[in-house]
Amino acid sequence: MALVVMKFGGSSVGDAERMKRVARRIVDKKREGNQVVVVVSAMGDTTDDLIDLSKQIVDGTPSAREMDMLLTTGEQVSVALLSMAVQSLGEPAISYTGWQAGLHTDSAHSKARIIDMKPERLHKSLAEDKIVIVAGFQGISPEGEITTLGRGGSDTTAVALAAGIGADLCEIYTDVDGVYSTDPRVVKCARKLNEISYDEMLELAHLGAAVLHPRAVEYAKNYNVKLVVRSSFTQNEGTIVKEEAVMEQGIVVRGIAYEKNVARIVISGVPEKPGQLAKVFNALAEAGINVDIIVQSGVHSGSAEFAFTVAMSDLESAMRVISGIQADIGFAEASSEGDLVKVSIVGAGMASNPGVAAAMFDTISKLGVSINMVSTSEIKVSCVIPSEPLADVVRALHTAFGLDTNEQAFVGGPAERR
Amino acid sequence: MALVVMKFGGSSVGDAERMKRVARRIVDKKREGNQVVVVVSAMGDTTDDLIDLSKQIVDGTPSAREMDMLLTTGEQVSVALLSMAVQSLGEPAISYTGWQAGLHTDSAHSKARIIDMKPERLHKSLAEDKIVIVAGFQGISPEGEITTLGRGGSDTTAVALAAGIGADLCEIYTDVDGVYSTDPRVVKCARKLNEISYDEMLELAHLGAAVLHPRAVEYAKNYNVKLVVRSSFTQNEGTIVKEEAVMEQGIVVRGIAYEKNVARIVISGVPEKPGQLAKVFNALAEAGINVDIIVQSGVHSGSAEFAFTVAMSDLESAMRVISGIQADIGFAEASSEGDLVKVSIVGAGMASNPGVAAAMFDTISKLGVSINMVSTSEIKVSCVIPSEPLADVVRALHTAFGLDTNEQAFVGGPAERR
Repeated sequence: MALVVMKFGGSSVGDAERMKRVARRIVDKKREGNQVVVVVSAMGDTTDDLIDLSKQIVDGTPSAREMDMLLTTGEQVSVALLSMAVQSLGEPAISYTGWQAGLHTDSAHSKARIIDMKPERLHKSLAEDKIVIVAGFQGISPEGEITTLGRGGSDTTAVALAAGIGADLCEIYTDVDGVYSTDPRVVKCARKLNEISYDEMLELAHLGAAVLHPRAVEYAKNYNVKLVVRSSFTQNEGTIVKEEAVMEQGIVVRGIAYEKNVARIVISGVPEKPGQLAKVFNALAEAGINVDIIVQSGVHSGSAEFAFTVAMSDLESAMRVISGIQADIGFAEASSEGDLVKVSIVGAGMASNPGVAAAMFDTISKLGVSINMVSTSEIKVSCVIPSEPLADVVRALHTAFGLDTNEQAFVGGPAERR
Repeated sequence: MALVVMKFGGSSVGDAERMKRVARRIVDKKREGNQVVVVVSAMGDTTDDLIDLSKQIVDGTPSAREMDMLLTTGEQVSVALLSMAVQSLGEPAISYTGWQAGLHTDSAHSKARIIDMKPERLHKSLAEDKIVIVAGFQGISPEGEITTLGRGGSDTTAVALAAGIGADLCEIYTDVDGVYSTDPRVVKCARKLNEISYDEMLELAHLGAAVLHPRAVEYAKNYNVKLVVRSSFTQNEGTIVKEEAVMEQGIVVRGIAYEKNVARIVISGVPEKPGQLAKVFNALAEAGINVDIIVQSGVHSGSAEFAFTVAMSDLESAMRVISGIQADIGFAEASSEGDLVKVSIVGAGMASNPGVAAAMFDTISKLGVSINMVSTSEIKVSCVIPSEPLADVVRALHTAFGLDTNEQAFVGGPAERR
């Protein structure tokens, strides 16, 4: 008998029919001889509808505490209905809110972090042979306030519960049937991965592969929770995410990710003084601008040049911030370039295989594409390139690193929320 | 500085505009120098919508526990939005669910009773100069389960909070501007009462005057909470409900109530044995049938006759129950009559004014109407009569007991839920 956590996103329970289908699936899992804990998100558009309602009441930004109070009702509705649906199939079930399930968080409303998990109530219900259904995305602060975990919250809830109750497996049901070697909408012969390591998944998640939230992957890695990503609409085997993932013979790159709408800013003629870099990036952080890749080139005749990337949507405000500190820093010039993309290859195997980065550069160059910036980690190489031939580049890399398969890839539907 | 509890029903916060108007009213109350605690119901049709959703999921009756889990989200949405609306008017506010507010109930899901009120959190927020907004209709059981108080729940929440925090006043805002001497839709010159005693209000509430739930009135009486019933749409003074209400000179009857769709059942030729009455009414209670007036007439030659009333909708099943126990009881005959009404006069003054009942019978007889049954208490006389001339009877009684006024009465809108 295994103890399994199953997590279903909002589109999996988007209406009564889907809710009943999920209930059927949960009951099947139980009747296969497992103990089952379910985590579920708000139904379909519920969260957006609640946000709209708040906008009818308040101009501007409502209090984060009251917003959490409002939004957590969405998951509470889901768990109550799903519990009823399971009961009507003849299996005992019980629903819990975040606070009832023992999910303790810090007090940061709308982006709380889980600080403790007290699983007594869940264990008691499991011992009573019940299917336990827990509201995702929410918890309780030390002050007894209802909190939400922010984006990716329900995934994180599932992983935290799995860790807290010592589950054998945490299944994340979504609208794609696993993690792919790259976006199947771009590369038709993308392959579904059977296994992937936490670190690789983390890199891919940070690179915009929306299937799992980075925070949930991090949590799974820290508590060594075995994850499976699979489709709630098919019975296909999903992708297993765990510590050591087996690589196929001769393959060093696990997947290829890309991110659009990247802009590059170059600041040149920066007088060489300690703390210049920190000044620039503190100013950007204060303005709420996320900086991704940062490259500092050599110092020539006492002045430095450095470049970094931001999202296209932040470019204008980033340039304003930089103009504002020109006098203080004393740099000569700041220039920018938009309409770029970042392409990355990810694979734990590359750490022990020199020449992977060179093979990537070579593949890109052969397409006549110039590389504007490069960033590397132990298991990742990212290149910033012009957006134009993106699909060609991804396809060429997919082929070059031996990832092509003949199977027809599953093309994902609308992305799951949270 | 007074400490005031204000309760708003679902139609008072039916949409964003009404919600904002209620917020304005709350803020005004605070700025007049009061400490304010607000109790609010679910918005408009929310509860019905949630019930519909559950019906899409489950055939038959869903678990009461899960139903409570589902329905309490309605009030949680209301308190969050109302708190935002108050905040946007520049006053600090904080919303609480039932469990956060310290409303402890027994474990009877869907009809829980309040067993304790722990007001620490409310006092703390009031001390911080905040307007406190509490979800009506809900509480927490000793097992940590979310419960609902059943019908009239938000009124009861308001009264229990008022008692628990030692409020000076509990204002029940509704869609009529007070308690009337009778239904203003029937009697145009019905008068709005300035004051009414708990006992009188209790009788009227039980007699179908939907403005306040009997349980809330009972609670107010037990804890001596001063109530005011008033309109959320006008600034008119409402009706004060308290222990000793002043009667106007020469008036002994406070109000006239009526109930339609009453049926009478007569069982005759009942052999005189102990426990016969109990058998009949136990059988009816087990079938979930409420019996109202019971009259036993004298015993003639060893056999008794008795009569009682039930709601028209229960008549058929009541007659089935009675047929089922005919052999056991050994009665001769059971007959029934539908299409009756019950008219009642209520007033604390009648206890010390003999002849009030006689005056009532006299007024009814003069209209040529026969009286089928009579039931009396210290402060009430009820007559069961044929439904036909009901409006005439109510009007005649209203005039006979000196209740007519020249003012145009306010005619109520759609009834508030809960």
